[in-house]
Amino acid sequence: MIMNYEIRRGAYYDSVVLMQLQKGLAGLPGVDDAGVVMATPANLELLAATDLLPDGVDAKPDDLLIVVRADTDEAAQAAIGQVDELLKRKRGGVAQSFRPHSLTAAADALPEAGWVLVSVPGRYAAGVAREALDLGKHVFLYSDNVALEDEVELKQKGREKGLLVMGPDCGTAIINGVGLGFANRVRRGKIGIAAASGTGLQAVSAEVHNLGGGVSHAIGTGGRDLKTAVGAITMRQGLSFLADDPDTEIIVLISKPPSPQAATRLLVAAQNGGKPVVVNLIGYPSPARQLGNLHFAAGLSDTAELAVKLSRAPGPKVVELHRPFSGYVRGLFSGGTLAYEVLLGLQSILTPLYSNIPIRPEQALADVMESQAHTILDLGEDAFTQGRLHPMMDNDLRVRRLRQEIADPETGMILLDVVLGEGSHPDPVSELAPAIAEAKQAGKKVVAVVVGTDEDPQELIGQIEALIAAGATVFATTTEMLDYVYNRVRPSAGDLFTAVEKTAFQGKLAAINVGVESFYDSLKAQGAEAIQVEWRPPAGGNEKLMAILAKMKGR
Amino acid sequence: MIMNYEIRRGAYYDSVVLMQLQKGLAGLPGVDDAGVVMATPANLELLAATDLLPDGVDAKPDDLLIVVRADTDEAAQAAIGQVDELLKRKRGGVAQSFRPHSLTAAADALPEAGWVLVSVPGRYAAGVAREALDLGKHVFLYSDNVALEDEVELKQKGREKGLLVMGPDCGTAIINGVGLGFANRVRRGKIGIAAASGTGLQAVSAEVHNLGGGVSHAIGTGGRDLKTAVGAITMRQGLSFLADDPDTEIIVLISKPPSPQAATRLLVAAQNGGKPVVVNLIGYPSPARQLGNLHFAAGLSDTAELAVKLSRAPGPKVVELHRPFSGYVRGLFSGGTLAYEVLLGLQSILTPLYSNIPIRPEQALADVMESQAHTILDLGEDAFTQGRLHPMMDNDLRVRRLRQEIADPETGMILLDVVLGEGSHPDPVSELAPAIAEAKQAGKKVVAVVVGTDEDPQELIGQIEALIAAGATVFATTTEMLDYVYNRVRPSAGDLFTAVEKTAFQGKLAAINVGVESFYDSLKAQGAEAIQVEWRPPAGGNEKLMAILAKMKGR
Repeated sequence: MIMNYEIRRGAYYDSVVLMQLQKGLAGLPGVDDAGVVMATPANLELLAATDLLPDGVDAKPDDLLIVVRADTDEAAQAAIGQVDELLKRKRGGVAQSFRPHSLTAAADALPEAGWVLVSVPGRYAAGVAREALDLGKHVFLYSDNVALEDEVELKQKGREKGLLVMGPDCGTAIINGVGLGFANRVRRGKIGIAAASGTGLQAVSAEVHNLGGGVSHAIGTGGRDLKTAVGAITMRQGLSFLADDPDTEIIVLISKPPSPQAATRLLVAAQNGGKPVVVNLIGYPSPARQLGNLHFAAGLSDTAELAVKLSRAPGPKVVELHRPFSGYVRGLFSGGTLAYEVLLGLQSILTPLYSNIPIRPEQALADVMESQAHTILDLGEDAFTQGRLHPMMDNDLRVRRLRQEIADPETGMILLDVVLGEGSHPDPVSELAPAIAEAKQAGKKVVAVVVGTDEDPQELIGQIEALIAAGATVFATTTEMLDYVYNRVRPSAGDLFTAVEKTAFQGKLAAINVGVESFYDSLKAQGAEAIQVEWRPPAGGNEKLMAILAKMKGR
Repeated sequence: MIMNYEIRRGAYYDSVVLMQLQKGLAGLPGVDDAGVVMATPANLELLAATDLLPDGVDAKPDDLLIVVRADTDEAAQAAIGQVDELLKRKRGGVAQSFRPHSLTAAADALPEAGWVLVSVPGRYAAGVAREALDLGKHVFLYSDNVALEDEVELKQKGREKGLLVMGPDCGTAIINGVGLGFANRVRRGKIGIAAASGTGLQAVSAEVHNLGGGVSHAIGTGGRDLKTAVGAITMRQGLSFLADDPDTEIIVLISKPPSPQAATRLLVAAQNGGKPVVVNLIGYPSPARQLGNLHFAAGLSDTAELAVKLSRAPGPKVVELHRPFSGYVRGLFSGGTLAYEVLLGLQSILTPLYSNIPIRPEQALADVMESQAHTILDLGEDAFTQGRLHPMMDNDLRVRRLRQEIADPETGMILLDVVLGEGSHPDPVSELAPAIAEAKQAGKKVVAVVVGTDEDPQELIGQIEALIAAGATVFATTTEMLDYVYNRVRPSAGDLFTAVEKTAFQGKLAAINVGVESFYDSLKAQGAEAIQVEWRPPAGGNEKLMAILAKMKGR
């Protein structure tokens, strides 16, 4: 076998063109295989893995590398000789007579366009997206290999302007029935989706359709939206849009593994919205199947099933708002696992939240003797039980702490557990009741979970009645206790958003496509208005010149 | 207010006695409050928090500190003067004529005892537990403040002997209908529980009862059993016992937040057992609602509901064993979220497992060009797509990698996705089919998930038929794909266990209690045979002498 290659320095070609060139070369007589790639280190490794990297190739990431492996030297040389011919033959394909060469010209030609699809190579993509935002357009940013700082800057700019920056690396969206990028054709319906996850959005929207349900809008955000640095800006914008959207009754949130901080910011917003929200953040542990208006799904398939089931449920969908309580939640538990379960549940919506059994390091309480903000304590933890009886046998310590929390003007709600059964105190509520009554007197809400059976020695019913008589609200499971809290927490709104611009979601979708031409074809095939920009890298791809040009524009 | 105090150096009292002394002092005339504690730093802080720590107290953790706060100096002094009287009055309470002073003597007196309950202070507890194992008894180790190294050593010893070491810090268990430590009285039934979580076990067993279900045995393990150092030894012993137990049809596993490594070891064992297992490891993300015989619950309440529902399902419970495949699983995905979901699902039962999108740091693939052991790849990840089309548009890269995996004799099963819809390749299966056929030829199983709808431009049915014709097994969701893998993976057994000794679980329960006397009372109240050891710290609590005595026994 003979290998032959050619390097084109600093050349830019659309990746569809490169793929077609590679296929064209591989199909020539005598040619065994061919590789046509931008010479990035990863691509060179990929070529090497399939024996397509000749020795001594000296190419930079900006260079186009064309390699042919053939039976004979003649065949290889002949193939390389065909490159220009093949490139010429394969260009074009978009049936569009007028091709603007700039985004501004395209916006002039199709002023109703509310969307710009950007799929140019990563290093140019932020610039194009910035231009689109300046023109007042929502951005669908398909390009990957875009720097995280650019993503943050673009999204902050979009948030100020009420414009979505879907991406970078956003593969898919469905706006008013039209798919952007990759998208399955699905029925219109009541389920709105926001997803930091391309195939997650596709898998769920397709299964919603296959189960007979339908999608109002599906908003992609790019896979990094739930990283701490980005803070779920786009997904929270999408959520807020869907919460206001009259066509959306059920909201679905999907994400690749999120940062816990970003997940909390998102779930606080979701809990505040009132509409039923199905949550599937991969790798994020579910505290229950349902808490308040949040439904936690396990996997994409479960997400679609839950959303369709909810969309078919009769009656009004928006969860009734209870009178919120003010102040902090303080949990004083005798059961460690009950404390963990409550901590796990509350960490999705309460912040800052502290504990002596932190699940995340930042939850560690500086001094377990003093509660801070929202605090969940396991009073059966080793430090509290040395040479003492467990709080399930003796509530002395717990009653003292209860009085300490009552005296704290920041305390709004106190959570307690009462665990009955063999080995436990014969009448635990008798010890707790006076302090619970004091809490009620002081205007603090007391909520208790009772673990017990009708066969337990303490008489379950009597214990529950005594708790209620003292002024507590009583539940049989921590899940019900959490649900109660979820329905009464209305945290402050957090960052202020400019309302998302709505007209681009209404009527016939119109969009400008910059980059991969098949996305333009796909828009047209779906009946959308679209215009393709005849895009070329600024300054012919010359990085130095690009930097100077950018500077001249004041960036 | 006046405070008065007394320090008793190196004194040992049962914590029930201390609690009773404190209540006795607080009830004396003129006394406002009292504190009776072992003078550990935490306890001194607790006293200070309730204004019960006089200035200048010089007490060590081994010392008993008695504090009285009273209206007058006379009242305070009078109260302190009552201490010996109160201690005398409150001693005893257990109606047992013969009180052996050692575990050996107790075992001689009640030879049928299969269990030893240990609730002496933490620093003595490991010694008592070791003695119990040497006598061939299962250990219920209630004591906390036991060193992790002691836990590991005890559990390894127990595993060799086929004996359970439940704990340290194990609050609860139900063996053959009798509760050990803290336990709710629940109906006997088909649901067996193993729990690294005391109130988790109580909450689930109580709710199982309240829902009309019943419990065969409930085995506590102590909250640290699923830490990496311990490696879930006791829970895996418990699981193996329940898997063999003819009275148990459904198994429930509960844990405080586990280490991922220990969780995997446990779930591999659970998946191997065949009986339906409901899993609720707090903070451990569920990959689906059900995979194979594993049912992932969200929260304690959901756990109980699922277990009861499964116990009522008609028909045989044991999951049919499919013919297992051999070799490694290699996943080549075009969809990042699909890859994540499969990785999340497989990490519970496959090890070692690698990926270019690791969820846990130890999953990071050293070289993304070469698979290692079980490997899941996202081929749409940035490194693979620079200057190239996404694998959803062009399978060139994927087909090359597919052939690489086929050539690897270690490959047993290949997982693929095919994502249809707008923007994707018009006929992706035509690109993949030849390589799939080669894989089948080479004896590799190929399993594909197809994401699509009947309205997609590629014709869903045609794509599925072409995949099947090429030799692939096809599913519509990643959950179904994972379920398929779960039902065919039979990993090697892992560490060898000595079968758990069974007679202690049969017939009338008989136990020796060392420590908190109310646990003895509770055993008797439940109709069990029990004997209380009149325990005193070895060498009167003198640490130096204890060390010498231990050395003389060769430890």
